[in-house]
Amino acid sequence: MTQKADTNFKREAKRGSHDFKLACQVLDAGKICHVGFTIDDQPYVVPMAYARQGNQLLIHGSVASRLVNSLASGLRCCVTVTHFDGLVYARSTFNSSMNYRSTMVFGTARLIDDPDEKRKSIQALVDHLMPGRRADLRKSTIKELNATSLLSLPIETFSTKCRTGPPSDSKSDMDAPVWAGVVPFELTAGEPVDSPDLLPGTVRPDYL
Amino acid sequence: MTQKADTNFKREAKRGSHDFKLACQVLDAGKICHVGFTIDDQPYVVPMAYARQGNQLLIHGSVASRLVNSLASGLRCCVTVTHFDGLVYARSTFNSSMNYRSTMVFGTARLIDDPDEKRKSIQALVDHLMPGRRADLRKSTIKELNATSLLSLPIETFSTKCRTGPPSDSKSDMDAPVWAGVVPFELTAGEPVDSPDLLPGTVRPDYL
Repeated sequence: MTQKADTNFKREAKRGSHDFKLACQVLDAGKICHVGFTIDDQPYVVPMAYARQGNQLLIHGSVASRLVNSLASGLRCCVTVTHFDGLVYARSTFNSSMNYRSTMVFGTARLIDDPDEKRKSIQALVDHLMPGRRADLRKSTIKELNATSLLSLPIETFSTKCRTGPPSDSKSDMDAPVWAGVVPFELTAGEPVDSPDLLPGTVRPDYL
Repeated sequence: MTQKADTNFKREAKRGSHDFKLACQVLDAGKICHVGFTIDDQPYVVPMAYARQGNQLLIHGSVASRLVNSLASGLRCCVTVTHFDGLVYARSTFNSSMNYRSTMVFGTARLIDDPDEKRKSIQALVDHLMPGRRADLRKSTIKELNATSLLSLPIETFSTKCRTGPPSDSKSDMDAPVWAGVVPFELTAGEPVDSPDLLPGTVRPDYL
């Protein structure tokens, strides 16, 4: 295995981890990743839907997309999943911070060619992104499968960084008569919005 | 101006825009960006706090961070801000999608050296990330300023992609007796959590 990515923690090493379980927790809690790759010395960072399946990350795109074609050609990439968990209000600007969990996976993705593997990977994506939905949807056609590209990135070289908890203020600031604490943030689902062209009598499924 | 980044839309061009106002709206609605850069052929994508100030993106980090030092040395980067707005439940797997807004800014960042500019930029960051907070905080010390690096990336080469609205199903799927619509997602602030070491009598400020 060529392990070129430098996953040593340069800063705030106490917030860093190479634990696989923790990385899986962070990855499984998200729906959007940011995929980084470079073409002609210009980095691109593109948001994509993804799912984890065992020790691989599945990334899905159109066969026509630049990202898919670049990654399928063997370009190295970095896939980052971040959860913004809160604003940390310290007693100084300097110690103000954010709570977050972020996992970076480095490597080279592989295009999933095998039709069976592709179908199963699409199922894994749907199950992750829209749990419960799959049973309601018809089988994908061959034409649809052919128009979809799926990439698999092994979760082998990776790192996770998290910050949690209250602010860490300097001792000299502890007498400041100012509020300190955390405002938590969370990505929350709202009330489902029916499609305007729903067939009469269609009810919202329980999995929403 | 060298404009190497390819900001043409390869896919779903109808979702793409190079409008500055729209880009500002997307950037101003976020608190975390993903910064992409490449070292020794390995891309890195790192989450960072940021703020927009006019036609520049301010990115803030430790003087010791790899990201700051790499970008300050003139490495090209891509900064992407994404809002995940919803899951789009179509009547097929193929047409299932996500609603989102995402702006990518390409270029080379500049380290902000001038102390006055640096102080003002830090203020802009605090005002963006924690509106109303600045008046409550003491002035940053010279030592703190020296330990902080600020990067400025011009918002010159950029692109925005958005998807909004209900699913776009194939005509042949419109008879399927399955619910279709959107489950909106939003990053929401929760109830503030007091720091355990708050001075007695400290009240929560109105800006939280």
